[in-house]
Amino acid sequence: MDRRSLLGGGGALLTAQLLPGTAHGRATSTPATADDAKFMQLAIEQAKEADVPFGAAIVVEGRVLALGRNSTKRNADPTAHAEMMAIRAFLQGHEPEALHAATLYASGEPCVMCMGAIIWCGIKRLVYAASIAELSPRIGQIDITARQIAAATPFEDIEITGGVLSADSIGLFPKE
Amino acid sequence: MDRRSLLGGGGALLTAQLLPGTAHGRATSTPATADDAKFMQLAIEQAKEADVPFGAAIVVEGRVLALGRNSTKRNADPTAHAEMMAIRAFLQGHEPEALHAATLYASGEPCVMCMGAIIWCGIKRLVYAASIAELSPRIGQIDITARQIAAATPFEDIEITGGVLSADSIGLFPKE
Repeated sequence: MDRRSLLGGGGALLTAQLLPGTAHGRATSTPATADDAKFMQLAIEQAKEADVPFGAAIVVEGRVLALGRNSTKRNADPTAHAEMMAIRAFLQGHEPEALHAATLYASGEPCVMCMGAIIWCGIKRLVYAASIAELSPRIGQIDITARQIAAATPFEDIEITGGVLSADSIGLFPKE
Repeated sequence: MDRRSLLGGGGALLTAQLLPGTAHGRATSTPATADDAKFMQLAIEQAKEADVPFGAAIVVEGRVLALGRNSTKRNADPTAHAEMMAIRAFLQGHEPEALHAATLYASGEPCVMCMGAIIWCGIKRLVYAASIAELSPRIGQIDITARQIAAATPFEDIEITGGVLSADSIGLFPKE
C-alpha cells in the first residue's frame, strides 16, 4: 500500500511568487484516512474499464454518490475525463451544493481542466493516487499541479491528499 | 474598438522557470484578424443572455458552428461555463477532430478548466476579450492565465489573441 501525504509546498510557494500581490487559497495537506484506500480502490476499478485508465469516485459522508471513468473515445468527447464524468453523474441526481461536503477520489492527479472543475464545484477534499509527475512519462500531461491551481485560487480552500495507491494506478499504464 | 495582441511573454517565461526540464508547448501570439471583432460580438451577445456574463463561439473556416453561454445557475452545474457549453454543443453535431481547425472566441479569458478543455480538444486558436487580470476585480478568478497553461503543455500548440472588444466584455460586469 502506498499511503503518503504529498506536501507539495514548493509548488505553492513558486506559484505565489509567480503571482505577487494577490490573495491565495489554501491547499491544506491532509493525511490519508482509514477509508481512503477503500474508496480509491473504487476509482481504480473504474480506471480499469476506462478508455484511458483514469477513474474517479465522489464520496459524501462515507457514501459513494457518483463514479466516473475516462470516456473520451466512447463519448467522442476529449473533455470526458474521469473526474468530469463523476461530477456530471453527481449533478444528475444531486444539487451542486452537496459537493461542498464531498471528497473526490481520482486515480490520477487531476489535470488543469478537472482541477478547475473541482474548485468551481467547491469540492471539500481531493484524494489522488498517481501524481502528474509520476504519470507524465507514461501519458501526456499539462505540467501544472493540482496544488498550484489551489494556491492560485483566492476564493476557495481545498484539502488535498496525494499518493494513495499510486503504484496500483501507474501500473495500469504501459511503460513508454 | 479594442484590438490588441497581448503577448504575455512574462507569464510563459515564469512558468518555464517554474517547471524546469520539461518540454513546453508554444502559445503563439497572433494579431487580431479582420473578422475577429465580428465573431467576438457573437460571444458578447451570448454573454448578455448568460447567468454570469460570459459567452463563447466556435468558428471553423468562417462558419459559426457552436455558441455557448454561462449556464451555471439554470443548469445547476458549476462547470457550465460558456466555453464548456460551446464545446459540448459543438460535439453534439461534429466529430472532435473538427475542433483542430477551430477558433474559439471567449468574452473572458478562459479559466484553467476551460483552457484545459480547449487544449485537450486541440482547438487551433483562442481569441478572448477581457483578460483574467481585467476580470479579477469584478469576479473571482483563478490566477493562472491561458498562456501559462499553454506554456506548460508539451504536446500541443495553440495560437492566442487577447483583448478583442475587451471593454465591451468588462462593461457587462457591475463594478465592485
